[in-house]
Amino acid sequence: MAQNNFLLLLDDALKHQRIDQALKAIESFKAVDIADILNQLPLDSGRELLLHLPERAYVFSYLEPEKQVQLAKTISWSELAKIIGEMSSDKRADIFKQLDTEQQNALLPALAQAEREDIRQLSQHAEGTAGAIMSSEYATLTAELNTTQAIQMLRLEAPDTETIYIAYVLDSDRKLLGVISLKQLILAPENALVQDLMIKDVIFCRVDTDQDEVAKKIARYDFLALPIVDDSGKMVGIVTYDDAMDVASEEATEDFLKSSAVDASSKLSIKTAPILQLYKKRVFWLVILVFGSLLSSIGIAHFEDIISRNIVLVFFLPLLVGSGGNAGAQSATLMVRALATGDVEAKDWLYLLFRELLVALCLGGTMALAVSILGLYRGDEMVALVLALSMTGIVLLGCIIGMSLPFILNLLKLDPASASAPLVTSICDATGVLVYLYIASQLLSFSV
Amino acid sequence: MAQNNFLLLLDDALKHQRIDQALKAIESFKAVDIADILNQLPLDSGRELLLHLPERAYVFSYLEPEKQVQLAKTISWSELAKIIGEMSSDKRADIFKQLDTEQQNALLPALAQAEREDIRQLSQHAEGTAGAIMSSEYATLTAELNTTQAIQMLRLEAPDTETIYIAYVLDSDRKLLGVISLKQLILAPENALVQDLMIKDVIFCRVDTDQDEVAKKIARYDFLALPIVDDSGKMVGIVTYDDAMDVASEEATEDFLKSSAVDASSKLSIKTAPILQLYKKRVFWLVILVFGSLLSSIGIAHFEDIISRNIVLVFFLPLLVGSGGNAGAQSATLMVRALATGDVEAKDWLYLLFRELLVALCLGGTMALAVSILGLYRGDEMVALVLALSMTGIVLLGCIIGMSLPFILNLLKLDPASASAPLVTSICDATGVLVYLYIASQLLSFSV
Repeated sequence: MAQNNFLLLLDDALKHQRIDQALKAIESFKAVDIADILNQLPLDSGRELLLHLPERAYVFSYLEPEKQVQLAKTISWSELAKIIGEMSSDKRADIFKQLDTEQQNALLPALAQAEREDIRQLSQHAEGTAGAIMSSEYATLTAELNTTQAIQMLRLEAPDTETIYIAYVLDSDRKLLGVISLKQLILAPENALVQDLMIKDVIFCRVDTDQDEVAKKIARYDFLALPIVDDSGKMVGIVTYDDAMDVASEEATEDFLKSSAVDASSKLSIKTAPILQLYKKRVFWLVILVFGSLLSSIGIAHFEDIISRNIVLVFFLPLLVGSGGNAGAQSATLMVRALATGDVEAKDWLYLLFRELLVALCLGGTMALAVSILGLYRGDEMVALVLALSMTGIVLLGCIIGMSLPFILNLLKLDPASASAPLVTSICDATGVLVYLYIASQLLSFSV
Repeated sequence: MAQNNFLLLLDDALKHQRIDQALKAIESFKAVDIADILNQLPLDSGRELLLHLPERAYVFSYLEPEKQVQLAKTISWSELAKIIGEMSSDKRADIFKQLDTEQQNALLPALAQAEREDIRQLSQHAEGTAGAIMSSEYATLTAELNTTQAIQMLRLEAPDTETIYIAYVLDSDRKLLGVISLKQLILAPENALVQDLMIKDVIFCRVDTDQDEVAKKIARYDFLALPIVDDSGKMVGIVTYDDAMDVASEEATEDFLKSSAVDASSKLSIKTAPILQLYKKRVFWLVILVFGSLLSSIGIAHFEDIISRNIVLVFFLPLLVGSGGNAGAQSATLMVRALATGDVEAKDWLYLLFRELLVALCLGGTMALAVSILGLYRGDEMVALVLALSMTGIVLLGCIIGMSLPFILNLLKLDPASASAPLVTSICDATGVLVYLYIASQLLSFSV
């Protein structure tokens, strides 16, 4: 409520051109907070505020992509070029890629030569690669500088770099010789040379490396930034820790959605995305899974006879079949996440299968005990035996299927995260139906 | 293979006291890579290597917790105290908390007074809070210093701080007056004062703030570190961006495992954890879900009559019931993740429910069409109608249940992530059985 009131007052001030009052109201706000407000303001007021913000390029880069495009259309090209010119190179390329060709062509002549070149360079990399998230603004030093000279150099480079805390030492070919931190420079004696201080075994990624791998490397080594080199080994950019955090969060969301069979290829907000797009993200797998469930149905049809003679079997069907699916979903999720975090690798499969079998036996045993008590209550000793045997078999198979599917997908160069709970569940369901009804048909045919 | 060979050679060198050779072999390795190797070496060789490493405290802090404890037991108390003394304060408190009381009591006298006090301070905070992950080593400045003095001050503080890139300006009561970056200090004129340069609206967290919230704040504002204050507003620590990354990854794993009903309260590796512990993480929910499935069974028992007269109904049971569960699992996962990333909040429930209903109607319609074709093929028009109506109803209900459950859990102050796919599925299954068989009993009673 307070938030809404604040927005209304701010909107009112902007509508009546009381700009100073509006700016005063958000004086103590950080850029990302101002971007949040801009996302919620009507377009006209939002534009008015944006154009008067002291840190407008910075705020603009935090806006939601759709809002950026909307605003870009209402601002004059020359004004937009100024804002985009002030943005960091990676954010600038991001917004540029979202504009349509007509808008891009109108904007380009208004940009400075260096910015145009930069956009051209950065926009050429495929989405999801290091090249697509890197920034071309990083601090560089030459090896023969002493610390005083190097610090002076960083001072000069500061306005055009994402960070001056890490500097890359390049030769005349822009090949990476080493990396040095501002901390090292500050702590070293004044006449020490960069080449003696720098770390020479530089960890880097190539432009076509998967963004997920870049983020993992940054997290693993606690880097502030990771240098990116092109095919010829020339340094072309850096990915900073804050971008790595965003990538890690995106990748986690993607795996998370995949785990319940939601298409995660494009980023959509359930709050703002069009209904039809949300529908599209979900319908594909739902329909596929219908055909998965058909397998269960076919299994049931095959045993229709024994079911109609022992209708009590249907009573336990959801319970047995569901347990296999649940155990399988657990196994799949454990494996998918362990593969994603790098805790396990494809080569560990056999060892993990052995461990999984032990866990599954314990789980199956417990569940068999539980269900056979129910069997005694609803049926007789024979029913209890059928249930106990079926449960053990179903849970065991469920676990094997669930833990193996991610590895099989990995082997086929598919995303292991596609081994979603619903997919595993429907495979386990079909298997479960067959196991249960087969065991029942073998043991119960005498009792009828 | 190459990796294994390397390990064998290294182990051999260490066993034969060829320490220099071993150190030479890992010369170019980063601390975290050396820790990886140590995790895989036999305990004796590992200890030998650790004790001779130049950055041993740093490497030690990267080891797996179990390995740290194992090694701690084989190293003399005085040697261990030296290593622990060299560690950063948060890592030092972490390892201390893992030792048993006897070991703690043996270790404490060997530590310096300041380290003892530090451990006492940091160990008192509950797991999962800012206090439990913060470090007490941060750079502080006073407001009246000029930039030259401030940089000189940071130089002196550097050995005892996690970062000198961000410094906190405190008053004599250790209350936060402002925050200033080394970049600001380097770029400002020599006689500028800290109090004029510093940012005064400091964003901070309290010691008892949830670690997830701390990590989110750091990611949101792209901070290098976030200051932590106690109840009286005194600054007591910082959480750095790299720790925030680790927390974000842990929390994602936790939510991910919960999504398939695996207990995620303790961190276990599926590769190394004892089988019984893995069993314990999974059995609770599996057994609970058996009782969930019982609801479906009871539903089936209620309609046993109509089933035995229309055995074809069983054929479609897994398919219809499964679809509701799948759609519900999708909805739940979308909501859980959106709540976790802050994309939606509890107050958005009604609006999201409205949107979800629209999506569900589209999904239900598509699925109804698909299943009624199957119905015509296996049965007649009446069966097709029953299937279409049931499917629409089941998918609609599934989506409503799936999207609402996380909000209800949130309202009850429970973790929304507990609305796992299997839980949602078993609730939707029971609902689906009732909807399907009720509709069938109403429409098919005439056709028999």
